[in-house]
Amino acid sequence: MMTLLLNADMGESYGPWVMGLDHEVMPHVDLANVACGFHASDPDVMRRTVRLAKQHGVRIGAHPAYPDLVGFGRRSMACSPEEIENLVLYQLGALYGMCRAEGHALSYVKPHGALYNDMARDPVIMTAVMRAILAFDPALPLMSMATRDTSAVRKLAAEHGVTLWFEAFADRAYDGEGRLVSRREVGAVHHDAELIVGQATRIARGHPLTAKDGSQLVLAADTLCVHGDNPESIAAVKAIRQALRDLGTVS
Amino acid sequence: MMTLLLNADMGESYGPWVMGLDHEVMPHVDLANVACGFHASDPDVMRRTVRLAKQHGVRIGAHPAYPDLVGFGRRSMACSPEEIENLVLYQLGALYGMCRAEGHALSYVKPHGALYNDMARDPVIMTAVMRAILAFDPALPLMSMATRDTSAVRKLAAEHGVTLWFEAFADRAYDGEGRLVSRREVGAVHHDAELIVGQATRIARGHPLTAKDGSQLVLAADTLCVHGDNPESIAAVKAIRQALRDLGTVS
Amino acid sequence: MMTLLLNADMGESYGPWVMGLDHEVMPHVDLANVACGFHASDPDVMRRTVRLAKQHGVRIGAHPAYPDLVGFGRRSMACSPEEIENLVLYQLGALYGMCRAEGHALSYVKPHGALYNDMARDPVIMTAVMRAILAFDPALPLMSMATRDTSAVRKLAAEHGVTLWFEAFADRAYDGEGRLVSRREVGAVHHDAELIVGQATRIARGHPLTAKDGSQLVLAADTLCVHGDNPESIAAVKAIRQALRDLGTVS
Amino acid sequence: MMTLLLNADMGESYGPWVMGLDHEVMPHVDLANVACGFHASDPDVMRRTVRLAKQHGVRIGAHPAYPDLVGFGRRSMACSPEEIENLVLYQLGALYGMCRAEGHALSYVKPHGALYNDMARDPVIMTAVMRAILAFDPALPLMSMATRDTSAVRKLAAEHGVTLWFEAFADRAYDGEGRLVSRREVGAVHHDAELIVGQATRIARGHPLTAKDGSQLVLAADTLCVHGDNPESIAAVKAIRQALRDLGTVS
Repeated sequence: MMTLLLNADMGESYGPWVMGLDHEVMPHVDLANVACGFHASDPDVMRRTVRLAKQHGVRIGAHPAYPDLVGFGRRSMACSPEEIENLVLYQLGALYGMCRAEGHALSYVKPHGALYNDMARDPVIMTAVMRAILAFDPALPLMSMATRDTSAVRKLAAEHGVTLWFEAFADRAYDGEGRLVSRREVGAVHHDAELIVGQATRIARGHPLTAKDGSQLVLAADTLCVHGDNPESIAAVKAIRQALRDLGTVS
Repeated sequence: MMTLLLNADMGESYGPWVMGLDHEVMPHVDLANVACGFHASDPDVMRRTVRLAKQHGVRIGAHPAYPDLVGFGRRSMACSPEEIENLVLYQLGALYGMCRAEGHALSYVKPHGALYNDMARDPVIMTAVMRAILAFDPALPLMSMATRDTSAVRKLAAEHGVTLWFEAFADRAYDGEGRLVSRREVGAVHHDAELIVGQATRIARGHPLTAKDGSQLVLAADTLCVHGDNPESIAAVKAIRQALRDLGTVS
Repeated sequence: MMTLLLNADMGESYGPWVMGLDHEVMPHVDLANVACGFHASDPDVMRRTVRLAKQHGVRIGAHPAYPDLVGFGRRSMACSPEEIENLVLYQLGALYGMCRAEGHALSYVKPHGALYNDMARDPVIMTAVMRAILAFDPALPLMSMATRDTSAVRKLAAEHGVTLWFEAFADRAYDGEGRLVSRREVGAVHHDAELIVGQATRIARGHPLTAKDGSQLVLAADTLCVHGDNPESIAAVKAIRQALRDLGTVS
Repeated sequence: MMTLLLNADMGESYGPWVMGLDHEVMPHVDLANVACGFHASDPDVMRRTVRLAKQHGVRIGAHPAYPDLVGFGRRSMACSPEEIENLVLYQLGALYGMCRAEGHALSYVKPHGALYNDMARDPVIMTAVMRAILAFDPALPLMSMATRDTSAVRKLAAEHGVTLWFEAFADRAYDGEGRLVSRREVGAVHHDAELIVGQATRIARGHPLTAKDGSQLVLAADTLCVHGDNPESIAAVKAIRQALRDLGTVS
């Protein structure tokens, strides 16, 4: 049984605005996806977040996004592949500067929001993100959705020599293709703690989930996305952590 | 006689807006001060500028600024020392990302506009900039104004272990302290090519200039700031270059 | 024969960056589409542009855009209808403030770039723009593409009680539907002055153009889009103006 | 005894980030200072805030600021008087657009943060703000600090024909000049509810406060600044409201 790392979005405050309970969630995760200033975060927030991650031995991932602060990077933008490559590269460098200042490593890349979704559906965008990684540091893994059939993205990654980390969700319903059910649909997001922990455990053991269409869905995941938005989500992270520890699938 | 390097601000275009004749001036300088996205430039412009500099064997300096795009970083902002340290660090990292992608080195730091002026008058701000450099790469020299008496800034740099490169201007009048005469005053900016080349030559030889108050002013400079704004300034750069070559003070 | 008004994008400078020859083109147009700060322009540029328009008796139109300065509003963004309504409203108000300060009227609305294209293909987006206009001032006409069949947009406008001004282009090739041929295709943009003036004249007279597919295309246009980017486009504006004067179709 | 209006900063959320308990505080104030997008707020937040104010019969004031979102408009920026005039004008217009859409009036202007402080100490900046008001609507009152001696600002306002509304604070200590004691000093901010209500009552009755230097300070105030940041400040607003009602100095 492989280790299932927990990752959470962090450093999403901006100027005077606070978002997320970073201090609460940091002790319980393995990977911190740190916003790089385009959808959230600012130089002060980034530096504090890297410092906090280092204190807890949590690895840092760049969480680059489209340049859309007011929209929190959640809105697709028709950027060209070259623009995407360069805006990801810019954000990787900026966060790397913070890591270097704090004596911590930059360990992986997880695009944020609309960019994450767009690269999953469009190999041209996925390639642009990969080119940014290759240009900056070919050793950085790219986090991407675990779906039913990941052969296309694995082929693309192999062609470019990029390592993939597949990510699954414990609190979201999946469709038959292994994609997330849209938040606009009823039942898309699990709120019941037992359900969430159960899904995390099945993913960790390689056991199938039941997709929305009733089919059995096995997700091969390296990491599980968790949230530090509010006390309920912090409680869920702790419960997942404990359950995975009991299975021996987290460090 | 030491070598006097020519530096110019580059990469100050932004999105659809073009500024500066970077292709014209790049072949004639040693050092390119590249904007990092806070007062000018964007990820595409930065990458193109780094690539162009590499093609011409020109070294790259980070040109960080206050976060004031519409004001082009020319307006002082009451940022805290911590904010300045982190915003400089962010910009260093972002430009470093571009350098890494193009296989070129980041070689020095020259703060832009109001930040450059503010650090010259306020050791707290100078210290904040130095802290950013130390946090990112203590080997990066900091470019600073050559004035009549640079003992205070040299002392500060020695305390922090930061290397200074002193910068002089061939096209600006100096006051008795060796500071630039304000652009609002008559005679502040030289437009006559002969005058500009003459001032460059005197600085290169370590000969005194005549300050506005009539006093003789010797500036110990490592580099001369030149401009690529328009055809006239490009012509001036070439003339300065030739004059310094004749003296044997440029490579 | 109806009057064909000439409109041009104006006030697209930003901070230190200059775009367009507004002083050159203003005397030759009827309508100035003034950027409102989201894709271009800033408060100083907006005010100067409104003042200049007033001096020349040119009417002011708001030229609102997606919030994408670095992309110049040319990239589609997946904004919600409510977001579009409110961001258009914000920009209308901001430009209205400048008009009020200069004692000039705000006379119409022409969305910019990707927003203009997106509203042409998506009635939900067109409706959002109309709702902004209705909320601010129902008397403001909305400028929209003249195509072969404008019945759908006319129906939408009638339902909302919004006046439409249809716009045609003298320097662009049209496809059979009366849409602009993409700039990526050969022959999409006319550069020959005679060809441009000829197309303007045909549009003004209600004579058909030959579309890319060889079909005859009649465009019912209220206004013709002209450009003030460079000396060539200024010359074209003057030539179009003269040709339309000869026809008696401009004031 | 005159009526003392309660004013509070509102609409300071931005994109996904929430700030302030606007729904909690709105029912208890007379005047809502609405951020205009430069230091906080966005078109959606502005519109919702204007709508909420209208529902509660609360008057809207524009709360313009320096263009410094990440710094929340709290950092002085060396803008020229012309830049200040135009950026205030832009923000007035933008908020006016929202008011017009909601059928509510724009009733006054209160500059935010550093701009408020800078105009209090520099008549050139105060004049720039007044010029923006005059250009947009000379009937809009300008909110300004009630200090011991307001003769200079009253003279300036009289020269320009601008109405002033003087503002006092119930939760802040004053120095002998009637200026706020810096937050960096001990005792600068009152946290005790009784103390706050007592100070509000004294200001309302025209009774003197005891300044930091021990002197008696009478502040002639039209309005009292209250806060909706957290449950404690909401409680304070309600207590102040009740106390002033008991005095008959609020509507």
